[in-house]
Amino acid sequence: MGQMAAARRRADRARQVADLLRRQIVHGIFPHGRLPPEAALASEFGASRNTVRDALRLLHEEGLVERCPGVGTTVSGEKYPHGLHQLLGLAETLHEHGQVTNQVRTMTVIEPPSAVSTRLGLSPGEPVIYLERLRRLNGLPLSLDLTYLVRDVGEPLFDADLENNDIFVLLEGIAGQPLGTAELTLEAVNADPHTATVLEAPRGAALLMVERLTHLADGSPVDLEFIRFRGDRLTMRGHLNRATDEEGRWP
Amino acid sequence: MGQMAAARRRADRARQVADLLRRQIVHGIFPHGRLPPEAALASEFGASRNTVRDALRLLHEEGLVERCPGVGTTVSGEKYPHGLHQLLGLAETLHEHGQVTNQVRTMTVIEPPSAVSTRLGLSPGEPVIYLERLRRLNGLPLSLDLTYLVRDVGEPLFDADLENNDIFVLLEGIAGQPLGTAELTLEAVNADPHTATVLEAPRGAALLMVERLTHLADGSPVDLEFIRFRGDRLTMRGHLNRATDEEGRWP
Repeated sequence: MGQMAAARRRADRARQVADLLRRQIVHGIFPHGRLPPEAALASEFGASRNTVRDALRLLHEEGLVERCPGVGTTVSGEKYPHGLHQLLGLAETLHEHGQVTNQVRTMTVIEPPSAVSTRLGLSPGEPVIYLERLRRLNGLPLSLDLTYLVRDVGEPLFDADLENNDIFVLLEGIAGQPLGTAELTLEAVNADPHTATVLEAPRGAALLMVERLTHLADGSPVDLEFIRFRGDRLTMRGHLNRATDEEGRWP
Repeated sequence: MGQMAAARRRADRARQVADLLRRQIVHGIFPHGRLPPEAALASEFGASRNTVRDALRLLHEEGLVERCPGVGTTVSGEKYPHGLHQLLGLAETLHEHGQVTNQVRTMTVIEPPSAVSTRLGLSPGEPVIYLERLRRLNGLPLSLDLTYLVRDVGEPLFDADLENNDIFVLLEGIAGQPLGTAELTLEAVNADPHTATVLEAPRGAALLMVERLTHLADGSPVDLEFIRFRGDRLTMRGHLNRATDEEGRWP
């Protein structure tokens, strides 16, 4: 095997090992967040010590583990699960994991561009509430949310405790009806320098970018959000079904 | 307003404009992929020319637009939609967008680590098929897939046309039954140098990382995959429901 082929093979193997370890780390299977020694991992994965070291380096670069000479490898960053099916606010989603607080960076009434009016079903020029929040879990920055709200449900939020409440719960109280459904788009993007600073993440860090249009139960769109989650703090979880029709037949 | 506050405000405004433009670009609303001139965008978004320029720079860095002096801004990279509910192979998902081809980088029988055996419901040491594919759409790299398959459905794949077929369709033929459900985890990670090279993406590019365990209709797990999608080529789309119980009551 040539040198290049060997290097490629080692990188391929490191990726395999990293993927399997990532899942174990995220699911918290290592007691006290302490990974087994390199030799044990090498034996478990049928890999060389060098491959295991490469895999641990990949996970370190993702912000998942710390490596300390003489001490070993420990899980450094917790990744929180976020469902892909039920429509929940962040505090509702993460209530088992700690306290969500929201720093309001901006809150104002604006005449929105047509890209916003159209999606919220408003006439051109109809004002909306624009809200920008930095959301933290247990004090650590988790996401930066840009929110456009239709005026009748958005305006009462000026008097609400936005710092300690999800918008969703407040909206339901104001509207006197539950929320219904939301359309969701999910992408991976690199953080621009300013966003990275706000989220206290490395420049260029991978972000989960969510765009979500939420409707009241009566079908009217009320809340358009653009959310940047730190990629190293969140995993989205869901399930998929092969069959699409109600009888569950093979398509 | 101090200089720092002004810089922050401009960066915040650029992010707002970029988010609205991103959606319009991804949904293909600009005729011939040509964005309006900066002055028109500034007026549309009620923003300064400098803010619009900053926003276009953000989108350029995401690989979404090209900027050409004298010509203007054009959409450069198509982003393909991928559903978050139905379990589909890549060729099935993207059939309207072009041809998916798969380059098999590795295919071999291995004794898997316990992290794989456990998830596939196998006894320790039971061999599995390991398969690594670089998947392209219309010749452009889209994802790198690492796949572990239980032996009885995986072994016949050695004789199958993996280059031009989704695994899912082949598995259903081999198993004589449809697939059922899959559990999915979705994360944003930065590409390590080797993965970036394989996917022909910039070093550190944001990737959508999917881990998916697929079951046959009878419930048995057969296919464990670790998929790295190029973040600039794919958006995931789905919907969320506020109510969880069958009556759709307010929780």
